[in-house]
Amino acid sequence: MAREQVPEPDPRRRGPPDPVLNGYKIDNPTLLSRIPSDELTQLLAGYGWTPFLVEGSEPESMHQAMAATLDRCVELVRGAQAEARRTGVAARPRWPMIVLRAPKGWTAPAELDGHALEGSWRAHQVPIPGVKRDPARLALLERWLRSYRPEELFDAAGAPVAAVREAAPRGPRRMGASARANGGLLKKALRLPDFRDYAVTVESPGGSQAGNTGPLGAFLRDVLRANDRNFRFFSPDETTSNRLDAVYEASGKLWLGASLPEDADGGRLAPDGRAVEVLSEHTLEGMLEGYLLTGRHGLLASYEAFVHIIDSMFNQHAKWLSICNRLSWREEIASLNLLVTSTVWRQDHNGFTHQDPGFLDVVVNKSAEVTRIYLPPDANCLLSVADHCLRSENYVNVIVADKQVHLQYLSMEAAVAHCAKGIGIWDWASSDEGHDPDVVMACAGDVATLEALAATAMLREAFPDLRLRFVNVVDLFKLQPETEHPHGLSDRDFDSLFTGDAPIIFNFHGYPWLVHRLAYRRRNHPNLHVRGYKEKGSINTPLELAIENQIDRFSLAMDVIDRVPRLLGPGAHAKERFRNRQIQCRLHAQEYGIDPPDIVGWRWPAGDAVGRD
Amino acid sequence: MAREQVPEPDPRRRGPPDPVLNGYKIDNPTLLSRIPSDELTQLLAGYGWTPFLVEGSEPESMHQAMAATLDRCVELVRGAQAEARRTGVAARPRWPMIVLRAPKGWTAPAELDGHALEGSWRAHQVPIPGVKRDPARLALLERWLRSYRPEELFDAAGAPVAAVREAAPRGPRRMGASARANGGLLKKALRLPDFRDYAVTVESPGGSQAGNTGPLGAFLRDVLRANDRNFRFFSPDETTSNRLDAVYEASGKLWLGASLPEDADGGRLAPDGRAVEVLSEHTLEGMLEGYLLTGRHGLLASYEAFVHIIDSMFNQHAKWLSICNRLSWREEIASLNLLVTSTVWRQDHNGFTHQDPGFLDVVVNKSAEVTRIYLPPDANCLLSVADHCLRSENYVNVIVADKQVHLQYLSMEAAVAHCAKGIGIWDWASSDEGHDPDVVMACAGDVATLEALAATAMLREAFPDLRLRFVNVVDLFKLQPETEHPHGLSDRDFDSLFTGDAPIIFNFHGYPWLVHRLAYRRRNHPNLHVRGYKEKGSINTPLELAIENQIDRFSLAMDVIDRVPRLLGPGAHAKERFRNRQIQCRLHAQEYGIDPPDIVGWRWPAGDAVGRD
Repeated sequence: MAREQVPEPDPRRRGPPDPVLNGYKIDNPTLLSRIPSDELTQLLAGYGWTPFLVEGSEPESMHQAMAATLDRCVELVRGAQAEARRTGVAARPRWPMIVLRAPKGWTAPAELDGHALEGSWRAHQVPIPGVKRDPARLALLERWLRSYRPEELFDAAGAPVAAVREAAPRGPRRMGASARANGGLLKKALRLPDFRDYAVTVESPGGSQAGNTGPLGAFLRDVLRANDRNFRFFSPDETTSNRLDAVYEASGKLWLGASLPEDADGGRLAPDGRAVEVLSEHTLEGMLEGYLLTGRHGLLASYEAFVHIIDSMFNQHAKWLSICNRLSWREEIASLNLLVTSTVWRQDHNGFTHQDPGFLDVVVNKSAEVTRIYLPPDANCLLSVADHCLRSENYVNVIVADKQVHLQYLSMEAAVAHCAKGIGIWDWASSDEGHDPDVVMACAGDVATLEALAATAMLREAFPDLRLRFVNVVDLFKLQPETEHPHGLSDRDFDSLFTGDAPIIFNFHGYPWLVHRLAYRRRNHPNLHVRGYKEKGSINTPLELAIENQIDRFSLAMDVIDRVPRLLGPGAHAKERFRNRQIQCRLHAQEYGIDPPDIVGWRWPAGDAVGRD
Repeated sequence: MAREQVPEPDPRRRGPPDPVLNGYKIDNPTLLSRIPSDELTQLLAGYGWTPFLVEGSEPESMHQAMAATLDRCVELVRGAQAEARRTGVAARPRWPMIVLRAPKGWTAPAELDGHALEGSWRAHQVPIPGVKRDPARLALLERWLRSYRPEELFDAAGAPVAAVREAAPRGPRRMGASARANGGLLKKALRLPDFRDYAVTVESPGGSQAGNTGPLGAFLRDVLRANDRNFRFFSPDETTSNRLDAVYEASGKLWLGASLPEDADGGRLAPDGRAVEVLSEHTLEGMLEGYLLTGRHGLLASYEAFVHIIDSMFNQHAKWLSICNRLSWREEIASLNLLVTSTVWRQDHNGFTHQDPGFLDVVVNKSAEVTRIYLPPDANCLLSVADHCLRSENYVNVIVADKQVHLQYLSMEAAVAHCAKGIGIWDWASSDEGHDPDVVMACAGDVATLEALAATAMLREAFPDLRLRFVNVVDLFKLQPETEHPHGLSDRDFDSLFTGDAPIIFNFHGYPWLVHRLAYRRRNHPNLHVRGYKEKGSINTPLELAIENQIDRFSLAMDVIDRVPRLLGPGAHAKERFRNRQIQCRLHAQEYGIDPPDIVGWRWPAGDAVGRD
């Protein structure tokens, strides 16, 4: 029975919610209370309801009207449910709803000092102020409260009389004891397929390309299949665009509206669809939060620039989670998983409006105990991270991974180890083993990693004796001290990776300042030089956009020459070549609208070609 | 005539906009295209329109139907306008609107490879892909395009024929040449009263209290009065709550809905109101943007925690502005002015959900050429900053100022000088003149300034020979290098204010990391110690909340003792006293729900009491 009370659209399994309308805000009438009744009825009918108005101010007749209307509504709900269950047809019902139009501050004195009180915005907050000082007002308040006849409701000791006590629900029917209000009680762990089964084959690091989100889509498809009652996938009309359309093999798109014959040909609309697609990030975030709060699991995928639309909702959910951590009776719920894709660096035809990696800056402001950020560099890392996130509880997990085809770096085995560490040296790209490095080339994010790696190859070819350490960051909070975030590296680990004094060139997916904000307390921070997005962009080729923001291979290689003292003079020739090539690439992009083939087809040079020592 | 085309609600002066509905998104049908026609009609009528449906797929009859419907709608619009102008009564009209229900990709081939094309989501983006490689598809595309009979539309040289040319509007009636699309052409500078006339009297710095937003409200009232055609004030139902209700002396609240008799008593609803109040930050931001884009001026006040709701809209407007700066033909428009009030530090009964100063972190990510952030510490600084913002063009100005009663520091003359500099030493609070300071106490934000000042008084009393420099920041971007932001201080100026090596205790209104993000390149950054909000809060007293986040006077004073080497040992006794007092204050707040009287009534000690040397 309890399940029926959760608002979901399919009438075979669910009943309707009960909307409530309010007539006044703190200082204004509400719009809906002031449009004509016929317009209000049309509006609510247009929203898909069957509205019933209960209107008046005389308590006794209002109670009767409300009771009769409630009975009628329950009857309609039961009838629609029975019909849907009998026929098995999930049509969208026009659920009943009740509009209660009663005076604001109902039963309050009609006036106070000559101003309307009952039925006015003055009844908001403190209807009768000043009762402590003003005996006349105190008397007015007393008269009002006595109109409730407390002597009939409480006994001589002040306890509620039996009739009141008996009207209250008992045990789990009490609102605060309902499992629905403490969804962790109902939560069942997901049955997860082995994410390793979806691995992309990586013969040699950086030697081949694949789409990063495609394998995740296949994994999510099987998560949907194995958890067909408690997992949903949410997307603002972007599932196919984000290359996650494998999920449709397991589930259609939730749709109870009218269907047309052509829908049968690839429309994928289904009344029991578990892929929820609405072109409204707000609506999806709200639905996902409700779904999690009632004990289920889910993931919401969004274009990166537009996930800012739910900043405020994220903030409030994160605040709610961090309070929950201090309430012993509240059971853990599934984490809110956000896949941030179609990212800043691959907006070829969308341009400047679609370039905004700043959601991470919002996320890092919230409590460290509930926030996690991952930037998997390739498909296997993304699978490993996603599996981890789907198993976790009481977090907001943000995964940043672009939907386009990218170089693949790590075999599944290597990816699992790398993601478990969250940050690590890629020894196959490094040339400093057994030595203090001349420079640390660090990166976080798929495109940032590609460019850092290409810069590394150029540098190692130009300077075979350069000792370069290549560090990739998956788990962004590793950069923070362990005292600030549970995932933070100890200073010893950080200093070991980043050294105490070598220049660090950090190529970052997002706004560069975020890395400084996380790492400003580290010993080697004065030598940390971060590149990232800085609001330079248009409808550019990928390399052109990278160059505009100086996260491209050429800029990074020149950064290294500028910052490694022993390269500054001798490296001038190489620097000149890098700059020439950068200019050529820009001109090529401007002339042909695409990047040169050797850039598009660039691979990490296998074996000795990079001058491994 | 041109004025009538701008969508505004009052039919005496304005006509209706023309909404357009779409049947398919990139990959899904739209909801409105699939609800039954009667429900759609009810919905649109419920929104206040008179909907007309034009539906079909046969071009010739559709053209006729559309033309007839347009004629009918123009007639209705003209009729409603004439009636409203004749009677002078501004009732809300039920404007006509047209729902055009035509096939998506109308006139495209019905099918492609056996899949529906015309009237399907497949007609989105590229309806017939692969025409370069597939001659059959190219032929199909050609057939489709030839159905438009280009030979009748273009002459032999490929130019449009005369009939086509003549149908195009000319001169300023061309869409791109309309002044409405380049609102700066229509913009008139505001007639601004002298903001100095609204000054709060400040006899001695920190010696008295006043509400900070009240005088601003009086200034805005007179801005409304002097600019009754081109200035509006926007607020999510919070004007009175934010102590800006003086604006109502100049203007009611825009309201064309039904009125009730009791509205006459303080409801302040008016059909020509220029205070726009909707409890929806999105709606207000959108209205304000449209108002600015068409050449007018405005200011939007929001609770601080809820301005995050418009993060994404701010981002896009800032991006738009920074592009405009590179378009020589586009005239400057008025800045988008956001007053961020009811801030994190004074949420006594609202608590944790209302504590979020993170909007600033979003703002700093956008282009330096269009973003400005001000944190005026008192009423006179707020007036000076607001005047500056209302005069500016092509910026987003964010002003952070709490609505509650606060200490007043600067006379109007001092405030004008302080705000012009944007950052400055308060010599009356400092004890280092003529010497290198032992410590720099810096602050930004009203409450942060109060606590820093109280800490300064405690320290100067405890250590009469302490050389303390007190620095207040109004213009946050002063902290950035001048190479990063046009307001940025040069390194010389920064080093002169903050020294090269003295410890800096910086008490910040927002998240503390933001100051590091702005100042990480400065020489003395390693000694910069920032306090700010760190997600610790509940329904606390003001001091309790400050203590939770360590921005309180006691924490700051102890920070100084910890960081000034010559105080570390000798200062232990004072530190103990500060900690004891901090504990007492916490206990007092927990017991009485308010702060101790000597905290609430604290004033900066006049004259010698602070041990001025």
